[in-house]
Amino acid sequence: MTTSRLTSFTDGVIAVIITIMVLELPVPKAPGMTALQPLTILFVVYALSFVKVGIYWSQHHNVLQAAKRVSGQVLLANLFFLFWLSLIPFVVRWVGEAGITRDTVIAFGSIMLLCTLSFALLLAALLEANDDDAPISRAGRRGHKGQITIFAYGLAIGSDFLWPYVAVAIYIAVACMWLVPDKRFESLIA
Amino acid sequence: MTTSRLTSFTDGVIAVIITIMVLELPVPKAPGMTALQPLTILFVVYALSFVKVGIYWSQHHNVLQAAKRVSGQVLLANLFFLFWLSLIPFVVRWVGEAGITRDTVIAFGSIMLLCTLSFALLLAALLEANDDDAPISRAGRRGHKGQITIFAYGLAIGSDFLWPYVAVAIYIAVACMWLVPDKRFESLIA
Amino acid sequence: MTTSRLTSFTDGVIAVIITIMVLELPVPKAPGMTALQPLTILFVVYALSFVKVGIYWSQHHNVLQAAKRVSGQVLLANLFFLFWLSLIPFVVRWVGEAGITRDTVIAFGSIMLLCTLSFALLLAALLEANDDDAPISRAGRRGHKGQITIFAYGLAIGSDFLWPYVAVAIYIAVACMWLVPDKRFESLIA
Amino acid sequence: MTTSRLTSFTDGVIAVIITIMVLELPVPKAPGMTALQPLTILFVVYALSFVKVGIYWSQHHNVLQAAKRVSGQVLLANLFFLFWLSLIPFVVRWVGEAGITRDTVIAFGSIMLLCTLSFALLLAALLEANDDDAPISRAGRRGHKGQITIFAYGLAIGSDFLWPYVAVAIYIAVACMWLVPDKRFESLIA
Repeated sequence: MTTSRLTSFTDGVIAVIITIMVLELPVPKAPGMTALQPLTILFVVYALSFVKVGIYWSQHHNVLQAAKRVSGQVLLANLFFLFWLSLIPFVVRWVGEAGITRDTVIAFGSIMLLCTLSFALLLAALLEANDDDAPISRAGRRGHKGQITIFAYGLAIGSDFLWPYVAVAIYIAVACMWLVPDKRFESLIA
Repeated sequence: MTTSRLTSFTDGVIAVIITIMVLELPVPKAPGMTALQPLTILFVVYALSFVKVGIYWSQHHNVLQAAKRVSGQVLLANLFFLFWLSLIPFVVRWVGEAGITRDTVIAFGSIMLLCTLSFALLLAALLEANDDDAPISRAGRRGHKGQITIFAYGLAIGSDFLWPYVAVAIYIAVACMWLVPDKRFESLIA
Repeated sequence: MTTSRLTSFTDGVIAVIITIMVLELPVPKAPGMTALQPLTILFVVYALSFVKVGIYWSQHHNVLQAAKRVSGQVLLANLFFLFWLSLIPFVVRWVGEAGITRDTVIAFGSIMLLCTLSFALLLAALLEANDDDAPISRAGRRGHKGQITIFAYGLAIGSDFLWPYVAVAIYIAVACMWLVPDKRFESLIA
Repeated sequence: MTTSRLTSFTDGVIAVIITIMVLELPVPKAPGMTALQPLTILFVVYALSFVKVGIYWSQHHNVLQAAKRVSGQVLLANLFFLFWLSLIPFVVRWVGEAGITRDTVIAFGSIMLLCTLSFALLLAALLEANDDDAPISRAGRRGHKGQITIFAYGLAIGSDFLWPYVAVAIYIAVACMWLVPDKRFESLIA
């Protein structure tokens, strides 16, 4: 089985996930700029959610470009990953609306951790489905971004119980780490 | 006619269907974990609907990978299948919100049965559109999962009138059967 | 320019259009079958809208499969067609909710006529963009389904002012005509 | 990395953006044409937003057809562009509902300017990712539509503070300029 349909379905699902929150931006009736003020938090939250989901899409894009075949396990692992990804707009918005508190940040961190873990599962399934000489085998086994992320998220969830803002700082640091384009895959596939 | 556009359209429709319910998860205003409690049922129902629709997508993916051409009948059969599939989130949510009663479980079972029957129609149309030496002809005529499912759903709808919980158990068993990757198609296409 | 991206975008837009109405089916809170009764009209209307949009997708699929290249005009004509297509769920639902009256049926017929005319425009732009020996040139210039449809819709809108039900009958007849797979394109492309 | 997945994801996101506003057209309960009157502004606004987003899709289509490869920077630039694009329905609707005033037109112009600037960024990233003999290098460096647009939007936002209607006229002129198919790309790719 080739990867084409897995990616086209994933693109469709992520396209809906990434735009879900625009659907809910309420249009103000008043003509002045002040009418936009109550929406500021929603805008920031929408941008954050967009960035988070967008980074995952880039990663998915890179990994799948390096894979040559998929298996039944890969299909299931991909669905499992998409399920957790689809909850990102929900938790991001909860943090945005209810504020940075212990519980909201823990919920945010848990979903992020589950996205990362399920993405690792997907990567493992892909490595098993592909031969050792596929580009993914050379790229996928190198690099430590994945492990660093899982470790950082664990740390963040732990520190949440005492200092939610420390956790938020860790999440931002992880996002920045991923925003740097992944040379590892690029050099192999380009 | 090749299969590429049929699959790209189907992927788009299923991507919308599978994410419909995230659109409706109401974000709580309160910052505590207890604010998530009233949403528990919606989460479970969303997960169930995601699994059910996801399994159908996998099946569609496998069958279409084995087909080489489509006909006008295949296009119509595919639309007919997508129509019933799009009602899954609706019935799953009805069961989740109104509870496991005779009527809700019968509605759920009927939609499931219609999905399975229309998928069988699609398979039949594909078999007719493809030559006897296409991979689908060898794979599609083997295996009994389809018949078992139709029989099980009939049984479940029948037992519903007396014991709705027996019906629910049958539905779960069928879902588990489909979660096991379909070796039949994999071995032929891989 | 090849057709691949035009079709992938169109598939995405039609996937959203065709599933818009499921998003609005309200889930009843009561567990009995009687709770579904107020939804009957919405179900019928959803099915009708699904069939109408689905038929247009099939046509678009057939015509684009026969085309080899697209031009800037084709892109614009396609957007113009998608715009009118996106209003089908709206008018179908208006007829369903406000009943079969002169005005609702005229609105329905006008949108249908605009869809058909803009599809004819798209076909003309495609014929111009493709060489005379492309499959679309041989297929697109034959057949009278398009003209019959435009004539029938004109007739229906006219008779609407006196007998809305006659118009409805004409619309159903046209839909049935299109449900029959289009041999013209199939034989050429298959 | 090839362009195929970038375009399929972008098509999905733009398909959702372009149809967002149909989702919000409220269906009237009354059967007469007068019931459509309160919706007139929403229809006009929907059409405008459709045209604006549709033009951007055409541009994206043309530019990406001329590119042969993408890089990590291109993926990020594309996400950045899609983010601003997704705010078009929001501002268009604000102008439609709150009327043509200084603030609403400035908001509209700012989003348009950000779309154009981020599209220029995307083009720059694509030019860097592609070799000098790729079609995009020959096409992308020619033509002044981009610069004219940025200049016109700057002018429009400036004149907004005094005469909002002058700004609106400039926006319409720019839209018309883009509606004319881009011969530059067509001749190179066709």
